[in-house]
Amino acid sequence: MLKVFWAEQTPVAASDRGLAYGDGLFETIRVHRGRPVLLGRHLRRMRDGARRLGIPLSAVELEHWLNRALARYDQDGDWVLKLILTRGSGGRGYVPPDPATPHLIISRHGMPALPDPGGVVAHVARHTLEANPALAGLKSLNRLDQVLASRELPAGAYEVLMTDSAGNLLEGGRTNVLLHLRSGWFVPPANSVAVWGVMQEYVAERLDAQGTPVRERRLPLSLLGQPDFQGLFLLNSVVGVVPVRRIGCQHLPIDNSLATICDPLTSLK
Amino acid sequence: MLKVFWAEQTPVAASDRGLAYGDGLFETIRVHRGRPVLLGRHLRRMRDGARRLGIPLSAVELEHWLNRALARYDQDGDWVLKLILTRGSGGRGYVPPDPATPHLIISRHGMPALPDPGGVVAHVARHTLEANPALAGLKSLNRLDQVLASRELPAGAYEVLMTDSAGNLLEGGRTNVLLHLRSGWFVPPANSVAVWGVMQEYVAERLDAQGTPVRERRLPLSLLGQPDFQGLFLLNSVVGVVPVRRIGCQHLPIDNSLATICDPLTSLK
Repeated sequence: MLKVFWAEQTPVAASDRGLAYGDGLFETIRVHRGRPVLLGRHLRRMRDGARRLGIPLSAVELEHWLNRALARYDQDGDWVLKLILTRGSGGRGYVPPDPATPHLIISRHGMPALPDPGGVVAHVARHTLEANPALAGLKSLNRLDQVLASRELPAGAYEVLMTDSAGNLLEGGRTNVLLHLRSGWFVPPANSVAVWGVMQEYVAERLDAQGTPVRERRLPLSLLGQPDFQGLFLLNSVVGVVPVRRIGCQHLPIDNSLATICDPLTSLK
Repeated sequence: MLKVFWAEQTPVAASDRGLAYGDGLFETIRVHRGRPVLLGRHLRRMRDGARRLGIPLSAVELEHWLNRALARYDQDGDWVLKLILTRGSGGRGYVPPDPATPHLIISRHGMPALPDPGGVVAHVARHTLEANPALAGLKSLNRLDQVLASRELPAGAYEVLMTDSAGNLLEGGRTNVLLHLRSGWFVPPANSVAVWGVMQEYVAERLDAQGTPVRERRLPLSLLGQPDFQGLFLLNSVVGVVPVRRIGCQHLPIDNSLATICDPLTSLK
């Protein structure tokens, strides 16, 4: 049974394990004219993450509160619904309470600034990422890597890009990356990325469906300068899909081949 | 300027970056007969951590609130003072606000159960640790590794031990490890451990001072079975220093050579 907090109304106890240890997960869901975009994928990721962390979560209950939130925050246009799921309070230090009473903290936010669809500027962060495969892909509340990388975002740049210590591109601060080479579409190995994005999943399925599958491989930054490089995309479920036109001083070719297939607003589900 | 929350009185907004991203630090300080144990080291670690995360923190202000907390929670015997420092609220997603108004969340807790000074049972967790050197040593609010490892703690065991994926011993869930071989005292490399413990620092200085320096090296678990193995200790600033007498089915020799030098209660500072 979830204990629910409407963020604008009820604050959270300092003993919440989400605050104490980042012991939880979150989702930020774009709502477009009353309909949540990529909803099934968001809810599935939260349920999968809860299973990996051992936080009890009923799919029926989660959907119940999602619907209550949509009714409560009912609003025209586009906005963002944020769900934070924590393991609740209690336990002996790090050892979780058993059974736990998870907390669901619900809030509404305005849309962030949308990127220029013609392409954005990115910056490679010095802060590198070393994803622990045991935590890889989880949209958990442990996001210090993203915070520290984002501190390096220069004025005028839209996104920081994080690599591992060997210089392989892994992801943006708040986006996943998708690389287009003449030989196909590529993402970094799933066990190396911090957050497995629902927009990335959606776009990969669309590309698969049109016979151009997305494959996993290491993505050294040097690929971006090679003759068979076609384009680099950033993917995020709230702001969409956008090509990178420049990284630092390096101008990248702009690839428009995703423009027609990757707008989930046209196929809300 | 800090914004201060007394945990028993004022809850925390859901927008606090400590909850949203684990964007902060904490200290748990044992207070013994009104005097905080290893206080200078705790405060120094929090200041150093704040500097690494770029959270503005004045040493004078931190000490002011520490003293206010000691007066407020004034209590005989032993108890635990917890300080959580977060970057506060706001910012654009992961990008921190500039300037930030950090939050200091202060709470009082009872002492945890003390370990049997004759030795405890430990358990090696399947959950491995891959510390990012950029975050190594920080007592940050990103503690999912410790939570997940602690879920494996079997009944009757006192502590889980975490290794890297190659099987090198790194630390306990809430303790640091110190290994005694015939050739000397050893801890894992500083850039491989998640939390750099103040008790570990204290004990290392005491051992150094008596001419038996503590050195860093990789600590494969196989060392525990070798003839020159003398003992394994767990160190924590609240519960102290305790030998491990058994890991799973493996009985370890008990080493009493730390008993006389490592009680910071006798040299409060």
